[in-house]
Amino acid sequence: MAEVLRVGETFRLSDIDPSSTPGFDGTKKDAAKIFDDHDAEIAELQERMYANARADEPGTPSILLVLQGMDTSGKGGIIRHVVGGVDPQGVRIASFKAPTDEERAHDFLWRIEKQVPPRGIIGVFDRSHYEDVLIQRVRSFAPPEEIERRYGAITEFEEQLASAGTHVVKVMLHISKEEQGERLAERLDRPDKYWKYNPGDVDERELWPAYQEAYDIALRRTSTTSAPWYCVPANRKWYARLVVKGLLLDTLRSLDLGWPPAKFDVEEERRRLAAS
Amino acid sequence: MAEVLRVGETFRLSDIDPSSTPGFDGTKKDAAKIFDDHDAEIAELQERMYANARADEPGTPSILLVLQGMDTSGKGGIIRHVVGGVDPQGVRIASFKAPTDEERAHDFLWRIEKQVPPRGIIGVFDRSHYEDVLIQRVRSFAPPEEIERRYGAITEFEEQLASAGTHVVKVMLHISKEEQGERLAERLDRPDKYWKYNPGDVDERELWPAYQEAYDIALRRTSTTSAPWYCVPANRKWYARLVVKGLLLDTLRSLDLGWPPAKFDVEEERRRLAAS
Repeated sequence: MAEVLRVGETFRLSDIDPSSTPGFDGTKKDAAKIFDDHDAEIAELQERMYANARADEPGTPSILLVLQGMDTSGKGGIIRHVVGGVDPQGVRIASFKAPTDEERAHDFLWRIEKQVPPRGIIGVFDRSHYEDVLIQRVRSFAPPEEIERRYGAITEFEEQLASAGTHVVKVMLHISKEEQGERLAERLDRPDKYWKYNPGDVDERELWPAYQEAYDIALRRTSTTSAPWYCVPANRKWYARLVVKGLLLDTLRSLDLGWPPAKFDVEEERRRLAAS
Repeated sequence: MAEVLRVGETFRLSDIDPSSTPGFDGTKKDAAKIFDDHDAEIAELQERMYANARADEPGTPSILLVLQGMDTSGKGGIIRHVVGGVDPQGVRIASFKAPTDEERAHDFLWRIEKQVPPRGIIGVFDRSHYEDVLIQRVRSFAPPEEIERRYGAITEFEEQLASAGTHVVKVMLHISKEEQGERLAERLDRPDKYWKYNPGDVDERELWPAYQEAYDIALRRTSTTSAPWYCVPANRKWYARLVVKGLLLDTLRSLDLGWPPAKFDVEEERRRLAAS
């Protein structure tokens, strides 16, 4: 299902309908069933990866799921509903806000590198180093030549991650401006949602076309074989969640991991245990 | 239910049957229903706490759940099944292994303080500073007078946490030596469990009475009003998980939090949004 969403060289957000459900022609109810059916397999494959790391098996991989999207695009919902199904001991979530003064005093990848998941772990980036070529480009927080440099720095960084065994999966949750308007309005209508609303969100919303262009460029230039982008239509939350869960499952399957062998003499340990 | 499990001044592990289910006289099936029924309320209360922190509400609390117990007592299962039901964005898990050289060069609380959950977050300690008065006492890794000093340092540290708004809940998962024997044997019988087995576990098992004594002393001396210990019979995993989930729910309820108020003019934002 996800392969049709993979970002290629001619990618343009405007070619993709945010309300569509490419590769899936079932109902929301069908999707819910598939969604739940994935749980047992994801749990087992995640545990295998974690077990290999705990047993110090050489070459144990990790997974890094990068989540990007405009405000209200559903990143938090993906974390709650997709990542929330995984054993929390095997997951690290890193949320990237506006950089602090200390972070700004370093290269833009400095704070990112510190959050790379160790072997055996599924890391999730809620926003990421891509903000450094999105808001930073749209708002001119960095000069054009520095933005330009960053695309190359990012692909090189992600190439290094891949060589070191981290499987990078990047997801852009694609919503329409109308959908965002409705979601923001709902936050203003419900006192239990006020905390999710930030007046600054409307400032960014006013720059919608510039953001779409920045996404077009960033995704085209950084969707590589070792760290592909998937542009996921996200007006329908259930579809986006199903796709991301499927991507996680596909990635775990591709690792093709067995259980690590015993690092001790099983018979000898049985004797010791029986005597204890 | 949990109140009967609270550790008091005359506490002794040997007075508590690890196979009992104090305060609960239903079946395992009844327990499963109550367990699931808690989910919605825990999710809402956790979100309120998180929301208050995000909205910078003064005095927003946090929760720290400390998990201790002998090997195989079920700490990992609590994290997977109880903590796993909570939105992962609102949870931080810290797992404490044998201290590194750098950690050993500092006071024993140095590495602990770094993992205290920030406001709005549920922190979980998988083992904790209590190892410094358990294995360190049993194995004489520190001299008696240093162990002695630590009990006081711990209660003072936890008192400070409480004053700063962290609700500390400490759980000791109490299993019998026979039950541990069966659980370790299962790890040796199943290749998908080998990775959980460590020959060192049998070494510690051989010191069972010394550990029980160290727990008796530690729990009695550090179960305070602001950071109480609960000794949870854990031979029946379903009972232990039900109790810990109930403790988490009770703690969340006791915070009595509402949704944070809007920090902006709702009408004005509606206008801005409509115009955007």
